[in-house]
Amino acid sequence: MTNETNKKKVVLVVGAGDATGGAIARRFAREGYVACVTRRHADKLQPLVETIRAEGGEAHGFASDARKEEEVAALVETIERDIGPIEAFVFNIGANVPCSILDETARKYFKIWEMACFAGFLTSQAVARRMVTRERGTILFTGATAGLRGAAGFAAFAGAKHGIRALAQSMARELGPRNIHVAHVVVDGAIDTEFIRESFPERYALKDQDGILNPEHIADSYWYLHSQPRDAWTFELDLRPWMERW
Amino acid sequence: MTNETNKKKVVLVVGAGDATGGAIARRFAREGYVACVTRRHADKLQPLVETIRAEGGEAHGFASDARKEEEVAALVETIERDIGPIEAFVFNIGANVPCSILDETARKYFKIWEMACFAGFLTSQAVARRMVTRERGTILFTGATAGLRGAAGFAAFAGAKHGIRALAQSMARELGPRNIHVAHVVVDGAIDTEFIRESFPERYALKDQDGILNPEHIADSYWYLHSQPRDAWTFELDLRPWMERW
Amino acid sequence: MTNETNKKKVVLVVGAGDATGGAIARRFAREGYVACVTRRHADKLQPLVETIRAEGGEAHGFASDARKEEEVAALVETIERDIGPIEAFVFNIGANVPCSILDETARKYFKIWEMACFAGFLTSQAVARRMVTRERGTILFTGATAGLRGAAGFAAFAGAKHGIRALAQSMARELGPRNIHVAHVVVDGAIDTEFIRESFPERYALKDQDGILNPEHIADSYWYLHSQPRDAWTFELDLRPWMERW
Amino acid sequence: MTNETNKKKVVLVVGAGDATGGAIARRFAREGYVACVTRRHADKLQPLVETIRAEGGEAHGFASDARKEEEVAALVETIERDIGPIEAFVFNIGANVPCSILDETARKYFKIWEMACFAGFLTSQAVARRMVTRERGTILFTGATAGLRGAAGFAAFAGAKHGIRALAQSMARELGPRNIHVAHVVVDGAIDTEFIRESFPERYALKDQDGILNPEHIADSYWYLHSQPRDAWTFELDLRPWMERW
Repeated sequence: MTNETNKKKVVLVVGAGDATGGAIARRFAREGYVACVTRRHADKLQPLVETIRAEGGEAHGFASDARKEEEVAALVETIERDIGPIEAFVFNIGANVPCSILDETARKYFKIWEMACFAGFLTSQAVARRMVTRERGTILFTGATAGLRGAAGFAAFAGAKHGIRALAQSMARELGPRNIHVAHVVVDGAIDTEFIRESFPERYALKDQDGILNPEHIADSYWYLHSQPRDAWTFELDLRPWMERW
Repeated sequence: MTNETNKKKVVLVVGAGDATGGAIARRFAREGYVACVTRRHADKLQPLVETIRAEGGEAHGFASDARKEEEVAALVETIERDIGPIEAFVFNIGANVPCSILDETARKYFKIWEMACFAGFLTSQAVARRMVTRERGTILFTGATAGLRGAAGFAAFAGAKHGIRALAQSMARELGPRNIHVAHVVVDGAIDTEFIRESFPERYALKDQDGILNPEHIADSYWYLHSQPRDAWTFELDLRPWMERW
Repeated sequence: MTNETNKKKVVLVVGAGDATGGAIARRFAREGYVACVTRRHADKLQPLVETIRAEGGEAHGFASDARKEEEVAALVETIERDIGPIEAFVFNIGANVPCSILDETARKYFKIWEMACFAGFLTSQAVARRMVTRERGTILFTGATAGLRGAAGFAAFAGAKHGIRALAQSMARELGPRNIHVAHVVVDGAIDTEFIRESFPERYALKDQDGILNPEHIADSYWYLHSQPRDAWTFELDLRPWMERW
Repeated sequence: MTNETNKKKVVLVVGAGDATGGAIARRFAREGYVACVTRRHADKLQPLVETIRAEGGEAHGFASDARKEEEVAALVETIERDIGPIEAFVFNIGANVPCSILDETARKYFKIWEMACFAGFLTSQAVARRMVTRERGTILFTGATAGLRGAAGFAAFAGAKHGIRALAQSMARELGPRNIHVAHVVVDGAIDTEFIRESFPERYALKDQDGILNPEHIADSYWYLHSQPRDAWTFELDLRPWMERW
């Protein structure tokens, strides 16, 4: 332990390419954590890394394919050896591409699961194996309403999100008693992103009245979960705009 | 509004007789809210009121039977007129008395519902009617795992807690779009109280390892819910000790 | 037992005043059960009793207020003494009157719970007490989607239906191991009734394409539940028209 | 249609290698359906096919790997061309191999999902594409309690079963209005199989008191679901022995 205490605490955000992942990394960095952020192509991470550094934080970007067991193992090994112990882990890869069940291709059904569920298994397991040796840590999954119900046209996404929720529950029940806090955040609503701005302008217009989710506020909830004392841990919470129908 | 802005913000905690309600009142008082706390007999509230004042806060105790519509109306009227607008409301009355379904008396089944559900309807409605005129406010319900599943021997308590959760959901869906934040906290586990200490000493002994819920930490979650920005409101979160089986 | 085996088996349907309750009573009567049917005013039961008799079955109508413990006790006593052992019990009282949470009266909130939940507790308990002495029997509750989620404007109905579902779950878990089959049917959609025909004619028009529930088919599901062998009991099933959105 | 009406109706059971799948195939065969049954190795299907024939039914066994899109397409094509329209489809492949989340291999996590979820997507989709052209059909999935909650040690199985439930829900919502009945059966408890007899003899001993599920009774519930009129379709029902804890 002595060695590790000299090292800074790390938050690892897998899937830091979107607004939510980026905001979470920045939030933890502001609290003094070294933000290790990944996506498949590292160059796209550079703006985030620079933003964190400009805000006075420490950040490292990693190109890493979370669907590849060896890459995941190497990533965790590198971070733990060179940077510090992973105190908090966030799995934030989504892949919501709706489709009629009649038209869905096998390839896309598989890809969505591989990205949004299988990668979550690989990465959270690799991190959990380290955390249990230290008997501490937080593992957070970004979920969605599709993790709770399968709507028409969402078989693939709902399947992946149901799978990640099952993983989170199973991990929470096994690792909670080993002092690892596992939690699942159900994001229900549009998030303030480029994608929403361009693809759903009417929806995006609700931003003026706080009708879409601010990534910074989502990030606050991740920090809240991480900072909960262990006698009162939350496994699951939902987040939605005040005006959202549900 | 001008008048009201001169008044301090009020948190009303109905069912402040137990450790949880008391901790919530103190938490909001530390944030500058005037804590209005109720239970059936006011004298038992005096220690709580004095504690809040000793901590530099403002507090008022009210004897009020939350099952009586007229008393509830009078309570809300008095607070709003003499003290300030109720910005946050907490319904925290429970009544967990397990019993075989074969032995449960009609009187007790009714009483448990009247205390833990009907009183929640009366009080939250009275407060909501004020909040909608101001288009702001937070309504928080203390729930339990019994609100999600009916275990053997818990028909009465589960019935009341299911009822309060249904109320919370229905209110959240109707009043969310009117800028009232309604949320439901699922407390799952033993709380650090006199009752647990005396009745379940083995359970209470888990306190040394954070195995029972600290009311102050429960209170933190209520404050967290109240302070969420409206683009990212939580309807429901659970709270349980790390070592709790679920 | 010898005495009882000479007696015919009884199905007791509490809340037989609507199309569903009536269809259930007739279905069990066709299977050789004596149908004991109740509602508050017996004269309105006469057509149902006569229909069952015309179909070759045996039926008895009872005026009984299911919200009154003494009336319930007397009803069960009378049936068990004079007619036969209650093998199957159906609680079928609903009370769906939507209302804004701001306008709901305390009286109506209470009445809806009293009819749709408290009466269910009183009647199912009275019957269960007999069934456990024989170590056999079936208890069936008519539920609704409102028992699973609280929609805007449905706080009272959802509260009652959540309560009855909690009761059903709790009873099933306690009484299952005593060989009493407790089940809960979630009816999701409009039923072919006078009420729907008159109040929702557009909805009723869907009958031509099987878009509303036929009470006879609902009744078939109750019979199916009752006839399940005990190694494969269902606790809950949902029923909805093929074209219903959910 | 004229052509098809001359053909017998087919039930296709994918995953007919276990007691449940076999019982379902026999049940539908007794009702006059041609039972087409599959598993990876056809020779193991021979006893089932012979049993059905000995009972006076018609049956065909197919070696088919449900995880291979081309094999699935060929299977459905062959059946529909040579035997008859698939009126009912049952996906019955499971793969419950518990493991600590720390020890689970990526290969096994993937395999369990591939067998118990991905194969379900491939097969049900292939069948659904035929059914929608006829605007009729039934698609049934064998689920498990693990589809509803992720227990410690069951991350892989729970993930797959959550995924199949999400698929079923999504299909039901999309295809219900096209007159395809999609349903999900939650089997909760041990089934009377060789596996349970050999691996869990104490559990198997409960058979004397109906404490484990009889596959024939499970099969009855599948037939019940298939025979429901479309104004009262069930999406989900659970099945468990009377003495099972849940």
